[in-house]
Amino acid sequence: MLIEMTAKDFLAQTASSSPAPGGGSASALAGALGVALAEMVINLTVGKKKYADVSEELSTLLPRLNQARRDLETAVDRDTEAFNGVMAAYGMPKDTEEQKQARTAAIQAATRQATEVPLGVMGTCLHALELTQTVAAKGNRNSISDAGVAGLLLAAALEGAALNVKINLPSLPEDDPFRKETQSAMERMLGEKVRLEQIIQDTVAKNL
Amino acid sequence: MLIEMTAKDFLAQTASSSPAPGGGSASALAGALGVALAEMVINLTVGKKKYADVSEELSTLLPRLNQARRDLETAVDRDTEAFNGVMAAYGMPKDTEEQKQARTAAIQAATRQATEVPLGVMGTCLHALELTQTVAAKGNRNSISDAGVAGLLLAAALEGAALNVKINLPSLPEDDPFRKETQSAMERMLGEKVRLEQIIQDTVAKNL
Repeated sequence: MLIEMTAKDFLAQTASSSPAPGGGSASALAGALGVALAEMVINLTVGKKKYADVSEELSTLLPRLNQARRDLETAVDRDTEAFNGVMAAYGMPKDTEEQKQARTAAIQAATRQATEVPLGVMGTCLHALELTQTVAAKGNRNSISDAGVAGLLLAAALEGAALNVKINLPSLPEDDPFRKETQSAMERMLGEKVRLEQIIQDTVAKNL
Repeated sequence: MLIEMTAKDFLAQTASSSPAPGGGSASALAGALGVALAEMVINLTVGKKKYADVSEELSTLLPRLNQARRDLETAVDRDTEAFNGVMAAYGMPKDTEEQKQARTAAIQAATRQATEVPLGVMGTCLHALELTQTVAAKGNRNSISDAGVAGLLLAAALEGAALNVKINLPSLPEDDPFRKETQSAMERMLGEKVRLEQIIQDTVAKNL
């Protein structure tokens, strides 16, 4: 599993001439890093006398962030598996009419999978950005730069995942309802990201 | 060493109530991920017939990106060490006048170190963004989303490192020339980042 590799080896494997892991897995990992920073800020806030009045609220966010981190960790490997699935489908034989049809169906199924994984990453990062908004506003002031980096990495991860949705979507049939739904879900999340990112960075700038 | 931990353990260690690794190390790691993706795009371009006319130019960027990745990997650990140095200095005794003076001097020296590391990360990410501009414009079209994610992660890493410069700078004496120089270097690099990020994302959108 990629997520069990050392950070150094993960980087070397990414840089190599093997196309996977690529931008999809890297986006998921960057998102997980952002989530981890938001969790850290809460862990450095809760229980401190000065933050007694926000400790309960921030505590309730921890299990949700923890789940988001687990989902993104899983997506690091799932994205590479999905990409490999697309490559395998393109490698299927296409000598007979039957083979061609089977290959086209396999490419579409694999592409759908390779679209669903980054779409899920976008959703998880958006959810984590919403929680990070509260972390930046109410968390330990000494860790305000960490909340800021959390917001930056989650926003970049969401946008990076969107690029992976965008590169796959044109391979699906134009009349596939999934294609249309995915396109509009992606646009909605990109818009929300811009809004939340701005709020978080304004909060950070004010408290830095 | 942090960089030798598994990705999963690095994330867990970040999320924990220990303040390090924090946003500085996370920014350096995200930058290294961005560099690795730019390297991958070159490795998926060079030697391909279709890209024969750009292969030589892109090949020359590889050792520079490789060096940038190594520098950012080193910064992952150096940033945490620098942060621990600041914490240790704040923990020094301050009972006598002599102790107070020694403590203040130690805090300033450690804070300077904790500023220089993210400033170096900013410079490395900016250099890598410049190279990624060429990678996005001339690299393998099938990997254009990877070039885009490289740009996104490098930009977020540069901005995240800037937050770590900003949180440390006010602890240095106002008349310290290093403080003024760092402030203006940081502002220049943040401006350059915005410009390069825009060029890369425009190139990606055009070719996606």
